[in-house]
Amino acid sequence: MNNFEYLNPTRILFGAGQIASVANHIPPTARVLMLFGGGSIKANGTYDEVKAALAGHFVVEFGGIEPNPHYETLMRAVELVKSEKIDFLVAVGGGSVIDGSKFVAAAAVFDGEPWDILAKGGKVVQGALPFGAVLTLPATGSEMNSASVITRAATREKRAFASPHVYPQFSVLDPSKTFTLPLRQVGNGVVDAFVHVMEQYMTYPADAPVQDRFAEGLLLTLIEQGPRVLAAPEDLSVRANIMWTATMALNGLIGVGVPQDWSTHMIGHELTALYGLDHAQTLAVVLPGILSVKREAKRGKLLQYAERVWGLREGSEDARIDAAIERTRAFFEQMGVPTQLSSYQLDASAIDAVASALEAGGLVKLGEHRDVTPSVARAALQLSL
Amino acid sequence: MNNFEYLNPTRILFGAGQIASVANHIPPTARVLMLFGGGSIKANGTYDEVKAALAGHFVVEFGGIEPNPHYETLMRAVELVKSEKIDFLVAVGGGSVIDGSKFVAAAAVFDGEPWDILAKGGKVVQGALPFGAVLTLPATGSEMNSASVITRAATREKRAFASPHVYPQFSVLDPSKTFTLPLRQVGNGVVDAFVHVMEQYMTYPADAPVQDRFAEGLLLTLIEQGPRVLAAPEDLSVRANIMWTATMALNGLIGVGVPQDWSTHMIGHELTALYGLDHAQTLAVVLPGILSVKREAKRGKLLQYAERVWGLREGSEDARIDAAIERTRAFFEQMGVPTQLSSYQLDASAIDAVASALEAGGLVKLGEHRDVTPSVARAALQLSL
Repeated sequence: MNNFEYLNPTRILFGAGQIASVANHIPPTARVLMLFGGGSIKANGTYDEVKAALAGHFVVEFGGIEPNPHYETLMRAVELVKSEKIDFLVAVGGGSVIDGSKFVAAAAVFDGEPWDILAKGGKVVQGALPFGAVLTLPATGSEMNSASVITRAATREKRAFASPHVYPQFSVLDPSKTFTLPLRQVGNGVVDAFVHVMEQYMTYPADAPVQDRFAEGLLLTLIEQGPRVLAAPEDLSVRANIMWTATMALNGLIGVGVPQDWSTHMIGHELTALYGLDHAQTLAVVLPGILSVKREAKRGKLLQYAERVWGLREGSEDARIDAAIERTRAFFEQMGVPTQLSSYQLDASAIDAVASALEAGGLVKLGEHRDVTPSVARAALQLSL
Repeated sequence: MNNFEYLNPTRILFGAGQIASVANHIPPTARVLMLFGGGSIKANGTYDEVKAALAGHFVVEFGGIEPNPHYETLMRAVELVKSEKIDFLVAVGGGSVIDGSKFVAAAAVFDGEPWDILAKGGKVVQGALPFGAVLTLPATGSEMNSASVITRAATREKRAFASPHVYPQFSVLDPSKTFTLPLRQVGNGVVDAFVHVMEQYMTYPADAPVQDRFAEGLLLTLIEQGPRVLAAPEDLSVRANIMWTATMALNGLIGVGVPQDWSTHMIGHELTALYGLDHAQTLAVVLPGILSVKREAKRGKLLQYAERVWGLREGSEDARIDAAIERTRAFFEQMGVPTQLSSYQLDASAIDAVASALEAGGLVKLGEHRDVTPSVARAALQLSL
């Protein structure tokens, strides 16, 4: 295991009914901006519950944050923060709203051109408004990490930033708030969390058995609970387990001291930018191919994954690896997330477009060995035509 | 899974060479008290490394904190904090030094009789001096939690307190600093961490698969790495894995939202108080008996433990449970920690004394079902004569 530094200062308030406690974690004199997305939180009662919890506070609202949140939208929120002298943000929604709120928190106090926060990956962030989150969609882990992905609609640029200043001060994880999610979003969330774990786990053996076993535990839990949530969407316990798994999948813990990949995410971002696929859909398309194409570099971990996650102990090494990749693909399909480009009405021309976009964006050395070039991405996608 | 609140604000600085970065996490103008135990940190170079790292700071030293740290000793450190106007503590040592420093941090700013902090379990703590730790003995988890156990030598009272004010601000986990530990302390540390996990895991099924699998991952890692450290004490990677496992075993994470037992610890404390056994020795004696005596209440988890941790899938339920308990006992013995009272020159009279001490201390309803009475403790200890 490599040396590492780890600090995660987010307070988790987990369980049904926890929204009511939000006000205990916001200064009484705070001027609050409540940020959210479309109308789903109004339809399912979450909006009313948060408003009731904040009844003693000065609250301004900012709705309409879209999936893959737009820089342009968020800059309007930044203006509102300034004009209303807001000093605390409350994000109510999924990863897009929370990611967007992180950007607003940083941009509102940023001395300079806010796009630089994204252009420079967050390194220029010196501070941020404090904020909390009420999570409604388990998937991205944004509720307990310091990262954010923002899209500039005008130029179709999708950029990430991270800064220790944008950890949520608190996040409410109330699994009952996920009952009304469309099943497509539920399946997407499970696949997203699964691939977050894989990006930190499926590299090469680094003699980090705690991180490995925690990662495997999260994967096993998603494989176990994912089909249950589709079969019994109103089961609070299943919802709770999926929610906690998705948070643990990307709060930094399983990634300490180990190599990380993230090529699937980077390639997938291009599919979203070019064709509008859901984030998780892109991951489901890309990951199986990456695992297959990079099987030599990942051999040790692929065999461990085959055995510990899928119970595959028979046959040749390559047979076990193939079976593990097939099981992974089948699991994504079972969660309602197709793994082939043709399912999204895309053909080989999309592969060319993705490879070109990676090239154009300078994303030519991805993965834990920096050897996932656009031609490797091309080979991976060809396995998912 | 039950509702829970989780926040762990300790910054972990993990790996060889990390002591040098300590000063980055202490205000430059701080007046520092460096607390430590006996001479071991001077013999192995840790003392010199910490002093070098703190060269730019005003530093006063307080050595001589004993195992099972004494209230009387620590109150002398509190006096020194006041007379020297100390405003930051650095604990250098194992769990006893860190536990002791937590008490000093709280008592130094406490308005009232400091014993109340312990008598009331920390509920009266309103604040504490900031402090950091340099860990030299992986075992207790004190480096990343908010709990502390202190002994009043005059009355032989061993009391615990916990407060969110006494999380270390940072902890350095440098596994190379553990090379010079006596093997008895190494084995004790592995057993201590193992039983910390068991206290949070071995209760009844609570549909918390992430917590279960994380706990099982830590147990499997201790079973895998424990014998390696005895065979190759200079293997940095093994030392690192044991260190990280022991921290994760008691930083609160695996215990969120699940029932907890802790009866083995409470019974064990009496064995230490009465006969001076090492803390881990008491756990090794008590746990196997508790598992056997409480096998009905713990049946579901015992079977899960037998299968997932020890790979036991054959035979009747009770045969698997018996085998799992025997494997547990054998593992402790393998780590050099005897599991029977006779190994410590104790006989049945010790059982009477422990039962009486529990009774006298009002510790008559222990365990996740509050049904571990002194007579249950007696029955458990009789299995380890």
